[in-house]
Amino acid sequence: MKLLRYGLPGFEKPGLMHADGTVRDLSDHIADISAATLSPLMLEQLRGLDIEGLPMVEKPGRIGACIGHPGKCICIGLNYSDHAAETGATPPNQPIIFAKAVTAICGPYDDVEMPRGSDALDWEVELAVVMGDTAKYVSEEDALNYVAGYAVMNDVSERTFQTKLEGQWTKGKSHDTFGPIGPWLVTTDELPDPHNLDMWLDVNGERRQTGNTNTLIFNVPQVISYLSRFMTLKPGDIISTGTPPGVAMGMKPPQWLKEGDVMTLGIDGLGEQKQTVVAA
Amino acid sequence: MKLLRYGLPGFEKPGLMHADGTVRDLSDHIADISAATLSPLMLEQLRGLDIEGLPMVEKPGRIGACIGHPGKCICIGLNYSDHAAETGATPPNQPIIFAKAVTAICGPYDDVEMPRGSDALDWEVELAVVMGDTAKYVSEEDALNYVAGYAVMNDVSERTFQTKLEGQWTKGKSHDTFGPIGPWLVTTDELPDPHNLDMWLDVNGERRQTGNTNTLIFNVPQVISYLSRFMTLKPGDIISTGTPPGVAMGMKPPQWLKEGDVMTLGIDGLGEQKQTVVAA
Repeated sequence: MKLLRYGLPGFEKPGLMHADGTVRDLSDHIADISAATLSPLMLEQLRGLDIEGLPMVEKPGRIGACIGHPGKCICIGLNYSDHAAETGATPPNQPIIFAKAVTAICGPYDDVEMPRGSDALDWEVELAVVMGDTAKYVSEEDALNYVAGYAVMNDVSERTFQTKLEGQWTKGKSHDTFGPIGPWLVTTDELPDPHNLDMWLDVNGERRQTGNTNTLIFNVPQVISYLSRFMTLKPGDIISTGTPPGVAMGMKPPQWLKEGDVMTLGIDGLGEQKQTVVAA
Repeated sequence: MKLLRYGLPGFEKPGLMHADGTVRDLSDHIADISAATLSPLMLEQLRGLDIEGLPMVEKPGRIGACIGHPGKCICIGLNYSDHAAETGATPPNQPIIFAKAVTAICGPYDDVEMPRGSDALDWEVELAVVMGDTAKYVSEEDALNYVAGYAVMNDVSERTFQTKLEGQWTKGKSHDTFGPIGPWLVTTDELPDPHNLDMWLDVNGERRQTGNTNTLIFNVPQVISYLSRFMTLKPGDIISTGTPPGVAMGMKPPQWLKEGDVMTLGIDGLGEQKQTVVAA
């Protein structure tokens, strides 16, 4: 299933992208695409619905984040061997994790804000994992059983805030709109193996990032199992798994985003995003 | 007001600690002590209640975290001049911020888990700020208008996870039960100025930490204004403002927590906590 949320920010309704390209409304069955509706049991019930019988949404309008009210957003740093090489960093021996404020999560076509004082705004196309079950000390073998699905995410980053100010990366990862996610949450029945997906990102129509999840240093089960040693993952939590090469930071000289720039990005089977950079 | 939550984990009810030492139930007026009930308007309505007329709770049982379902928990590192000296770190020129997973938040008397593989479990008594209004790019002058109240927090930390593994501090700050908060959320009408409060922490009855919020490097308005440049603060968000001297990490040799150890801690006017260390 391709689950989605449509409507104005804070008032999104749950929906489903049908194979015929139409959006079908799920409001009669669930209140939202969120923690309460992502359990294996609930997803099984949704899979049992007669899709043809669901109301067609003629004009869905804005598409929101594909997951409502995530409890946590954890990101993995330097998790593609080719991206690690690009930044000059030694590939890590274990996953580098950092947190993005959940207030940064937004829709896949929402404008991305350039924070005041920003001089190094950057993009990162990423495979996001959305949890469907509570995971604490889970093994790599079991890890995928706790996943609800996958989505495209743009881990927007302000590199000066992230690395030049004192302290932790959270500063450069948490501004409002720094986490477009969607358009769809593609459930694991439709995508059983997320480890061979092409991904790309353009700025103003010029290709910047080209990658494939087959160069992940730590794959999805490894990331989930590792994370679950340090915190309990809950349904609705987002894990963004890292970015392939081609970020502005890796260009010589860096070509940071500026107001009016347009990012388009996508991952095989997970859909595409488009954002315009605007002043905060 | 001293707001609190009582009941089993996940089923806490909202209450109020009356000046006569009894807990009064607020369930007829609000669903929880959480984002929706901490706005200036809602707090004003609560202040207008006839406390004597509220139902007395004979046996409140367990006291939960004083804030339910916080959206974010942001902590400030090295924010006491005397603690920075103790760790050998140069006092920062601007607030160091890091994130604690919200799943770590727990009640003030709940057991604290020692994670598997832990060998450097530490304590940190801290003044926590709970937000009551949405704050983005707010000035220091206005910052306190966005605060709902204050509480005691123990920013429990695993120092090996925090500093010896690759990556960011989040790893050592986010285990379940690493964020006891409460017993009360003391609203700003009862504590207009949080900058001259004695604070302390004992382990097994021996004094470990002694401090006062008057040695904060960045005070509460400065922290809120600074944070609001990097992320939008929402009602119910927790900001833990840093710890005074006396953590295990600063002892020579460090006396890390072990199973069965008992932490007691408190801050003037904000009440006391007590936790026993248990295996995860």
